[in-house]
Amino acid sequence: MLEHVLNADSVAIIGASKNETKRGFQTIRTLLDENYDGKIYPVNPKESSILGFQCYKKTSDIPGPVDMALIATPARTVPSVLEDCGKKGVHGAVVLAGGFGETGLKGKLLEETIVQTAQKHGIRIIGPNTSGMINFHKALNLVGLRDAPKGDIALLTQSGNMALTLITEAKIKSKKGFSYYVGVGNEADIKFHEYLEFFRKDPKTRAILMYVEGMRQGREFLQQAHITTIEKPVILLKSGRSSTGKQSAGSHTGALAGISAVAKGAFERAGIVVIENSDELFPAAETLSSLPPMKNKGVAILADGGGHATIAADLLSDLGIDIPELAESTKSKLKKFLPPAASLRNPVDVAGGTDSDPSVFADCARILLNDPNIGGLLIVGLFGGYGIRFAESLSLMEEDAAHQMGKLVVKKGKPIILHSLYSSEKSHSLDLLRYYGIPVYDSLDVACKCISVLATYGAYCKAYHVKTNFVLNWGSKALKEGQTLIKNAEKENRACLLEPEAKALLGLHGVNIATEHLARTADEAAAAANDMDAAAVLKIVSPDILHKSEAKGVALNLETEKAVRQAFEDIVADAKNYKPDADIRGVLVAPMAKPGLEVIIGTKIDDQFGPVVMFGLGGVMVEILKDVAFRVLPLSRHGAKMLIQEIKSFPILNGVRGGVAADKNALIRLLLTCSELMEAYPEILEMDLNPVIVHAEGCTVVDARILLKES
Amino acid sequence: MLEHVLNADSVAIIGASKNETKRGFQTIRTLLDENYDGKIYPVNPKESSILGFQCYKKTSDIPGPVDMALIATPARTVPSVLEDCGKKGVHGAVVLAGGFGETGLKGKLLEETIVQTAQKHGIRIIGPNTSGMINFHKALNLVGLRDAPKGDIALLTQSGNMALTLITEAKIKSKKGFSYYVGVGNEADIKFHEYLEFFRKDPKTRAILMYVEGMRQGREFLQQAHITTIEKPVILLKSGRSSTGKQSAGSHTGALAGISAVAKGAFERAGIVVIENSDELFPAAETLSSLPPMKNKGVAILADGGGHATIAADLLSDLGIDIPELAESTKSKLKKFLPPAASLRNPVDVAGGTDSDPSVFADCARILLNDPNIGGLLIVGLFGGYGIRFAESLSLMEEDAAHQMGKLVVKKGKPIILHSLYSSEKSHSLDLLRYYGIPVYDSLDVACKCISVLATYGAYCKAYHVKTNFVLNWGSKALKEGQTLIKNAEKENRACLLEPEAKALLGLHGVNIATEHLARTADEAAAAANDMDAAAVLKIVSPDILHKSEAKGVALNLETEKAVRQAFEDIVADAKNYKPDADIRGVLVAPMAKPGLEVIIGTKIDDQFGPVVMFGLGGVMVEILKDVAFRVLPLSRHGAKMLIQEIKSFPILNGVRGGVAADKNALIRLLLTCSELMEAYPEILEMDLNPVIVHAEGCTVVDARILLKES
Repeated sequence: MLEHVLNADSVAIIGASKNETKRGFQTIRTLLDENYDGKIYPVNPKESSILGFQCYKKTSDIPGPVDMALIATPARTVPSVLEDCGKKGVHGAVVLAGGFGETGLKGKLLEETIVQTAQKHGIRIIGPNTSGMINFHKALNLVGLRDAPKGDIALLTQSGNMALTLITEAKIKSKKGFSYYVGVGNEADIKFHEYLEFFRKDPKTRAILMYVEGMRQGREFLQQAHITTIEKPVILLKSGRSSTGKQSAGSHTGALAGISAVAKGAFERAGIVVIENSDELFPAAETLSSLPPMKNKGVAILADGGGHATIAADLLSDLGIDIPELAESTKSKLKKFLPPAASLRNPVDVAGGTDSDPSVFADCARILLNDPNIGGLLIVGLFGGYGIRFAESLSLMEEDAAHQMGKLVVKKGKPIILHSLYSSEKSHSLDLLRYYGIPVYDSLDVACKCISVLATYGAYCKAYHVKTNFVLNWGSKALKEGQTLIKNAEKENRACLLEPEAKALLGLHGVNIATEHLARTADEAAAAANDMDAAAVLKIVSPDILHKSEAKGVALNLETEKAVRQAFEDIVADAKNYKPDADIRGVLVAPMAKPGLEVIIGTKIDDQFGPVVMFGLGGVMVEILKDVAFRVLPLSRHGAKMLIQEIKSFPILNGVRGGVAADKNALIRLLLTCSELMEAYPEILEMDLNPVIVHAEGCTVVDARILLKES
Repeated sequence: MLEHVLNADSVAIIGASKNETKRGFQTIRTLLDENYDGKIYPVNPKESSILGFQCYKKTSDIPGPVDMALIATPARTVPSVLEDCGKKGVHGAVVLAGGFGETGLKGKLLEETIVQTAQKHGIRIIGPNTSGMINFHKALNLVGLRDAPKGDIALLTQSGNMALTLITEAKIKSKKGFSYYVGVGNEADIKFHEYLEFFRKDPKTRAILMYVEGMRQGREFLQQAHITTIEKPVILLKSGRSSTGKQSAGSHTGALAGISAVAKGAFERAGIVVIENSDELFPAAETLSSLPPMKNKGVAILADGGGHATIAADLLSDLGIDIPELAESTKSKLKKFLPPAASLRNPVDVAGGTDSDPSVFADCARILLNDPNIGGLLIVGLFGGYGIRFAESLSLMEEDAAHQMGKLVVKKGKPIILHSLYSSEKSHSLDLLRYYGIPVYDSLDVACKCISVLATYGAYCKAYHVKTNFVLNWGSKALKEGQTLIKNAEKENRACLLEPEAKALLGLHGVNIATEHLARTADEAAAAANDMDAAAVLKIVSPDILHKSEAKGVALNLETEKAVRQAFEDIVADAKNYKPDADIRGVLVAPMAKPGLEVIIGTKIDDQFGPVVMFGLGGVMVEILKDVAFRVLPLSRHGAKMLIQEIKSFPILNGVRGGVAADKNALIRLLLTCSELMEAYPEILEMDLNPVIVHAEGCTVVDARILLKES
């Protein structure tokens, strides 16, 4: 429980100082100035009092209970400081110092030491390598940042500067503020998902805003996000996409960056609003914490100039938002308020119809939000500046319109977002809108993004499935025979299953595997090939040869007994040539697969999220166009279907250029089995089914490779 | 010549008014208040004087010469007003009214009328449907917008609101301003390229900023842009990408929107900096008009916090900008100024090294710009706010750093761009930077985009080719035989060439076409097939059957005489079945093409830019993945090479999965011939070579379709 940590009633400042430039001074000053609702205990062996408070030599000297310690001393002192905190029974500690896991091996060891010390004493640690934390409503400000606005957004970041950026933006550009700020730092003890759970339950938090470089327990985070986002929106920017960005993140918070595509997809499936442009991060949180999500994806654009309307239409289309035709009745109602030159299709261009009375905006807004096809309204242009640009008297009409629109949003349960050229000017009508929870942006891009996240989040909530909860049931469906297969490999000290073993394992879980024979001699190979009603394929089987083609270990399309015998001899000779001491178990004789569409299925363990599956079409689609999709396991039937549809080349599965459609159900069953296998056998590190041929009916796993974790 | 229009020494205000809310009043007021350097003549038959000026009944009553007329009267009055202006010898007119081409057929006719009237009298028209024009240095302000900042950027837009947006942004967020503003409106008379030429020659203009919805003479614009951009940067945002955006643009300026992909590629080839995000439009112009373009693509990032550094690295990577390793000597020099915790690889994180003295930023900047791999510097974080965030005394050190960095840019000829959290605060050090021409942005995205445009524009200037000038030499390479082929079709009232004719035309221009025979009987077909050393293909030839497969008019891979005869009969019968009155010219007998890679080449006439070529790989790459590239003709050899490389599936041409490489030179030659044909025969509307099979050596045009313009 983080209650005592994030809502601490008493705090020890370890490394308290009289020097104004030190955190140990600034924090006490800020706690005092902002009227922290709790007890403050400076700790410093060299001082007797600081800012009027008695100063203690060590934490354990403090007489009353201490919930929380702010440790502002250097990294090397932290273990002993924590020991002393433990003695005192402190519940939580913020460790500010850097010099831990982000710096290399030595730092990692020190980090492990402090975590162990903390665990021993039941102390929960925020950080290390953090700028601190703030509980805004309690004025528990351990950052020393002043005048940060109080409100309903919880802020969770891995960068002090990004926190400062977001808080400054809130202060300058909005009427919003924060419930909590936590600098997660190296995430050594308290993990992202624990903070998330706390904020989910916190009644003062309406939305959660996150900046993430990398997570240590991504799956637990997804699970928590999945139950959080249906109650409160979570808005997240993950950096470290590029290789330089990854490096930079690594040296910053020592975070693992993982596969970007996996992270983005997984976050979105958990209902998180993923932001990729840092300019949109705070606005998205402002919007989602203030306005109702959209019940349908149709947005109306209301403009007082063609240029803004055109750009907004382009941007919303890029974001996948509908700009539906207005109902005839809507158009005829608008007609009464607007001049003949006005454009009444969506986007609506008032064409001067608001020049002498901007309160007409409110009339148009009411009519547009009454249209059943319209889920939300985006107003673009000069509103808020009519008094500045044209005549001062128009300001009053703008204010009237602001009051009307503010109430309209509540009444209709549909959002309005405003783009205004005058957003950064002092305009009372714009401030009114902000007080009503209608955000105002001077950027068209940001305004469009914000209405789009209301649509996306609304659509997520509408389609919410309890089942997609990211919970793995390890070992639940394991079969005894499967475990024996894996144990055999482990006994032989092998980190991989041989092809026949891998296929046998798939077969055990219901995958239809063609009858194949492991031949030890050319005679056995010929006999096996004779029994088949298709041409034969021969493949080397050796734990020492992972890349069969490289060792010339594969012969395709063998039609005669002679060819089979010759191929057997060649393959064995080439294998011995390739690796003289290779342990050759034999040659696998299999029937040539029927023609069909080549696909690739792979599974692996992602650094952050654990088991994931990858899917793509074989050949150039994967090799050249990198057209693949990822999904965090386990898969549901619906998830498997979505995974397949996510690749750009998906239509090829439906048959193109006269080709027949591939059996998508068979493919879905195979994907589900892969998911099942990853859960059933925690020993599996990686599976690679490449290629799988999907036929008009059924599919054939042509080759399968399964790697095991080092035991 | 637009000299008398844009630099007018005298201006008549037609529709002058005493009503303060009217443009006819506001314009005179503004000209007076801003000290217009010229003569003002109000024109209104109902008034005798306005604002102290004598008012004339009509323009032709004015005694002195009149360079320019601002026509603020309704659309229907414009023709007679222009007649009177003509009588007076006026050089130019701004027509404000809407209600012309953008409203439909009636408006289009009215627009034609005013253009004809103007041409008769030698009057050049700005607009109609415009907010007006401003010559800032002469205070010739015909917009009535006050306090717009003067400077060196020429602004050319098709939206009054976008102009207002950009001017407001300049005023609030920068120290920059404008030399001219022109609202192009419907572009009825003066075209984009004419304005561009004027600005190219104008000594007060350093950069040209454009917002475009659609152009009437795109090719002339490209030609002018090509010679402009090597002297002055041109920054452009084109809206109307989406279908709703196109509609919106159409009802706004009546603009043709054309193919987005064509426009973007063509603009970039002409050296224009194309911006897609409206937030970046003014900043890009600010940057390019203030700083030297980068001589190499390597950017150094200097940060005082890991989060900003990581995000900036991601963004620059997305933009294709290099973030190179620093030279060892650079690192060791940095080491002297920064604490041990600092990260000295690029991005450089000062890790607190500037906390007590932000002038260290200037030291680091000097060292980084001395690195030969570094073409420009991006500083991200808190600079400009150390005095605000930490201690006031630090402001002085920031100011010192600003002076140093300002001079450094001039000395090294390398740009610096700043991201600062405190950009919108009153910070003297940030203002200093802006005065030195170093832009400051509070958005990381914008800052990254701006350094990237310096890199892109620098690379363009370095690689500038005089040849790519977008000039078509119509008919230059036409052959007599080719003209005969086309004339024959025209004589028969055909809008297309038959397949044999199209191939013959290609053959005339040097394309290697397989020997093919037009057979009228099954005997002829059999004989022709016998002469071939490959299997035969039979295809219906009829001007009435454009889609041969649809009419079952194609038979492939015919190996025996019997099969050829049968196919002939079937094809003819099916054709008659498909279209009983079809004019059947015979059946084309061709050899099956050798195997190879299927590609598609098409040419068409774009609404805005004229002849363009499209290229893509055949099959699913075009049909499913829409992986195609466009290029405005004519093509150079280099252009053809670039076109091929532009598609995502390009690596397939180099051979994958054991396939051989396709003959790219043959493909380039074929593309050049297509370009040549489009120039040689202005009668051609569209060519469709689909498929072309590219072999390891040479290529085969399997099918060719050429459509002619309606004569």
